Amino acid sequence: MQKYKGILPKWADALSQALVLYSIVTFTVESEPRFQDHPFFYISELVVTSLFIIEYIARVWLARDRIAYIRSFYGIIDVLAILPTLLTIGIVDLRFVRILRLMRLLRLLKFVRYSRSMDLLYLAAKEIKGELVVFAFTILSMVYVASVGIYLFEGQAQPEQFGSITRSMWWAFVTLTTVGYGDVIPITTGGKAFAVIIMFIGLGVVAIPSGLLASSLVKTRQTLDEKTKKSDDDEENTEVQTEYSA
Amino acid sequence: MQKYKGILPKWADALSQALVLYSIVTFTVESEPRFQDHPFFYISELVVTSLFIIEYIARVWLARDRIAYIRSFYGIIDVLAILPTLLTIGIVDLRFVRILRLMRLLRLLKFVRYSRSMDLLYLAAKEIKGELVVFAFTILSMVYVASVGIYLFEGQAQPEQFGSITRSMWWAFVTLTTVGYGDVIPITTGGKAFAVIIMFIGLGVVAIPSGLLASSLVKTRQTLDEKTKKSDDDEENTEVQTEYSA
Amino acid sequence: MQKYKGILPKWADALSQALVLYSIVTFTVESEPRFQDHPFFYISELVVTSLFIIEYIARVWLARDRIAYIRSFYGIIDVLAILPTLLTIGIVDLRFVRILRLMRLLRLLKFVRYSRSMDLLYLAAKEIKGELVVFAFTILSMVYVASVGIYLFEGQAQPEQFGSITRSMWWAFVTLTTVGYGDVIPITTGGKAFAVIIMFIGLGVVAIPSGLLASSLVKTRQTLDEKTKKSDDDEENTEVQTEYSA
Amino acid sequence: MQKYKGILPKWADALSQALVLYSIVTFTVESEPRFQDHPFFYISELVVTSLFIIEYIARVWLARDRIAYIRSFYGIIDVLAILPTLLTIGIVDLRFVRILRLMRLLRLLKFVRYSRSMDLLYLAAKEIKGELVVFAFTILSMVYVASVGIYLFEGQAQPEQFGSITRSMWWAFVTLTTVGYGDVIPITTGGKAFAVIIMFIGLGVVAIPSGLLASSLVKTRQTLDEKTKKSDDDEENTEVQTEYSA
Repeated sequence: MQKYKGILPKWADALSQALVLYSIVTFTVESEPRFQDHPFFYISELVVTSLFIIEYIARVWLARDRIAYIRSFYGIIDVLAILPTLLTIGIVDLRFVRILRLMRLLRLLKFVRYSRSMDLLYLAAKEIKGELVVFAFTILSMVYVASVGIYLFEGQAQPEQFGSITRSMWWAFVTLTTVGYGDVIPITTGGKAFAVIIMFIGLGVVAIPSGLLASSLVKTRQTLDEKTKKSDDDEENTEVQTEYSA
Repeated sequence: MQKYKGILPKWADALSQALVLYSIVTFTVESEPRFQDHPFFYISELVVTSLFIIEYIARVWLARDRIAYIRSFYGIIDVLAILPTLLTIGIVDLRFVRILRLMRLLRLLKFVRYSRSMDLLYLAAKEIKGELVVFAFTILSMVYVASVGIYLFEGQAQPEQFGSITRSMWWAFVTLTTVGYGDVIPITTGGKAFAVIIMFIGLGVVAIPSGLLASSLVKTRQTLDEKTKKSDDDEENTEVQTEYSA
Repeated sequence: MQKYKGILPKWADALSQALVLYSIVTFTVESEPRFQDHPFFYISELVVTSLFIIEYIARVWLARDRIAYIRSFYGIIDVLAILPTLLTIGIVDLRFVRILRLMRLLRLLKFVRYSRSMDLLYLAAKEIKGELVVFAFTILSMVYVASVGIYLFEGQAQPEQFGSITRSMWWAFVTLTTVGYGDVIPITTGGKAFAVIIMFIGLGVVAIPSGLLASSLVKTRQTLDEKTKKSDDDEENTEVQTEYSA
Repeated sequence: MQKYKGILPKWADALSQALVLYSIVTFTVESEPRFQDHPFFYISELVVTSLFIIEYIARVWLARDRIAYIRSFYGIIDVLAILPTLLTIGIVDLRFVRILRLMRLLRLLKFVRYSRSMDLLYLAAKEIKGELVVFAFTILSMVYVASVGIYLFEGQAQPEQFGSITRSMWWAFVTLTTVGYGDVIPITTGGKAFAVIIMFIGLGVVAIPSGLLASSLVKTRQTLDEKTKKSDDDEENTEVQTEYSA
């Protein structure tokens, strides 16, 4: 993942990052009703895209292995930063344009290139992939069971909010994530008792994946640090070192 | 737990999983007021149950030790996936049917069979069972003390919401889990001050069990990994290995 | 802490626990407006207290070191479970009685005796006492800074809710604990921007103590397990054992 | 960081801490509308500042290396505790005074001097600086993507709350931090579905930094403890000690 980055000089990297930020800012401002469809944003977008095209060409040109760069994660990201605007040139006032415009947000991924800790995060998540999948499934099951239960308890008292399992799911998600907007609340005694049990059991489970990922991150970092150190003092004490490899 | 699974070919496993998902989806759609009691769902349910019966017979047939499979966790789950529908055939329009129908949700447990990480979770929870029980008790005590306190402070100002300890418990649970719907809120200065203290002390305690379980999961996984590695290099260095067994 | 428990036979321990639970249940039911001041609760309370007095006398009688038991944590708890009711006998209809009645809740502490994991929790909390104090102080400072900030931004727009620092504190606590009732919300752009910054920085800090205590619990348990194992295989490999003592 | 503290006798340290607390309390009370601009607070502030000036002079005087103390973190804090009030003497009723007054809150930093665990926290945060930056960036990106998404789904249905990306950000922050005031809530089916996905993915990520910092704190503490122990038994077993240095 670290190879084939298509190395640019530092000032060009900085410029590229600044362009992404500028592009996000104009995207945000353009959404304000009073600025919508102002010609400035159209021209600005063309300039930004041209600069990204130049960046892409330069990166391909300077890459050690050009094909490898084009096929790499970063190469694809760099294309995705250009494509949406390229495809909308000429086409005016179309529904399809709106979705393509949104894809400009993929430019945020360009920042990944500059973050060394992102690799660590990736490794840590990979390490506990199995557990994360189990928890995703467990939490979704819990949300479902909560939806069914509250539908049975509150369905008749509040048909508008809890009249079907799908309608009840909004409450289940908002409650189990502890967001608790308060727009949909059980009012029957049975519903409240059920909600209390769901909170008590469910909330603990919902919070586990974050703890897992945090622990995994610390462990992954430690392992990497030990590996680095190991290769440094490779000739020292072989007896104790057996331990690291375990 | 891993043995006696009553092994089926891969395509049958996939079909069984798809059937569970289909069964959950129809269960959900059936709860919509406009679809309720539509004959499609009755027929669909009969077909699904028939297929689960065939699956069960096949699993018993193919199991190495048939009695062991029937008595195993997975064997019981497979029966529980069939029974509720079987019992409601012939019986129309009964309260009892509704509860049996609900038991169809037990089919979700069929997924457990396919998850290797679930065993890890089970081991991790078993490891810290003592702590989990202590925290369950501590949190319930805290909820109770919070309910009593807020009842004393707010009972007279808001008798409808805080007029008895049991009524106050809804507030205590909603607050200590940080859900905070906002339907019941202390309004007196004393009640607010008490609520602030409860939040400050209580919330930290409520979040601990998740952290514990996450830590235990990481540790359990590490131990399992080390055991696997240990049996691999069993002849290597016996001096350092004493450490793992400790 | 484990000594001087004043050992009773198992059935007496079970009875004592049941009495505490019964006592909590009657305390809860008594708070219901329709049951208040019913003579049943007065008689029930006298019976429960009498039984606790008998328990206390038995524990003193059976203790190896009687003075030590009376002075111990458990000895004091056992007295506190009796005293509140004893002091209110004869006194009818007094404000003071209400507070004493509340002290009956101290009976909950009787459960501590039966929990082995509580000692672990105590050790774990002691281990990180310094950090917990730092975080208590940091969080309180953060709440204070949040209160001052929101008072400056929202004070004029919503004088009722944010008109002074003390009034703003309710919002700060409710927000930083992520309870978020929604009764007090910033409405000015400046106030919202400030709230967003406070959430972003503050929430991470507020969640740390729980993580710390969870980690400390796991570590404390590990240390205890290793100590137990160490004394078991004391004659084995002294070289590796140096490590545990470190 | 520990050096150049400019050591005072214990009673003076205690007095200084009490003064900070007193100063914070008067600052808080002064914000109450009925006490505002009461002459007592003006005089009180002058006295407190005078005492802080005396403290500063004493600390400079008693410091081993006076220049080092003046330039140190603690030296600057001590000046910042005096300056705001000094600058406002003579100036009456000015906007500028209000901001300077606010800077009195910097006195809270004086407490840092007395906390040994604060150093630990600083080391732990430094250790995972890279990860914290990555998460700050990831969470901000997630907030941005959530804002854009909800703006697209809810923008037309609730233009007042979701009519632009910037307006939608308030919802995104309030939801992703699980505060969930409930003042701004998606009402369209698409908006609710999007909100559910954002909660499901986002909340886990938002909670990670706290877990990371907690883990890092425990590890940092362990490393420090081991270092202390290592220097104690330096002559013992060199073979196993290689491990600590790794």
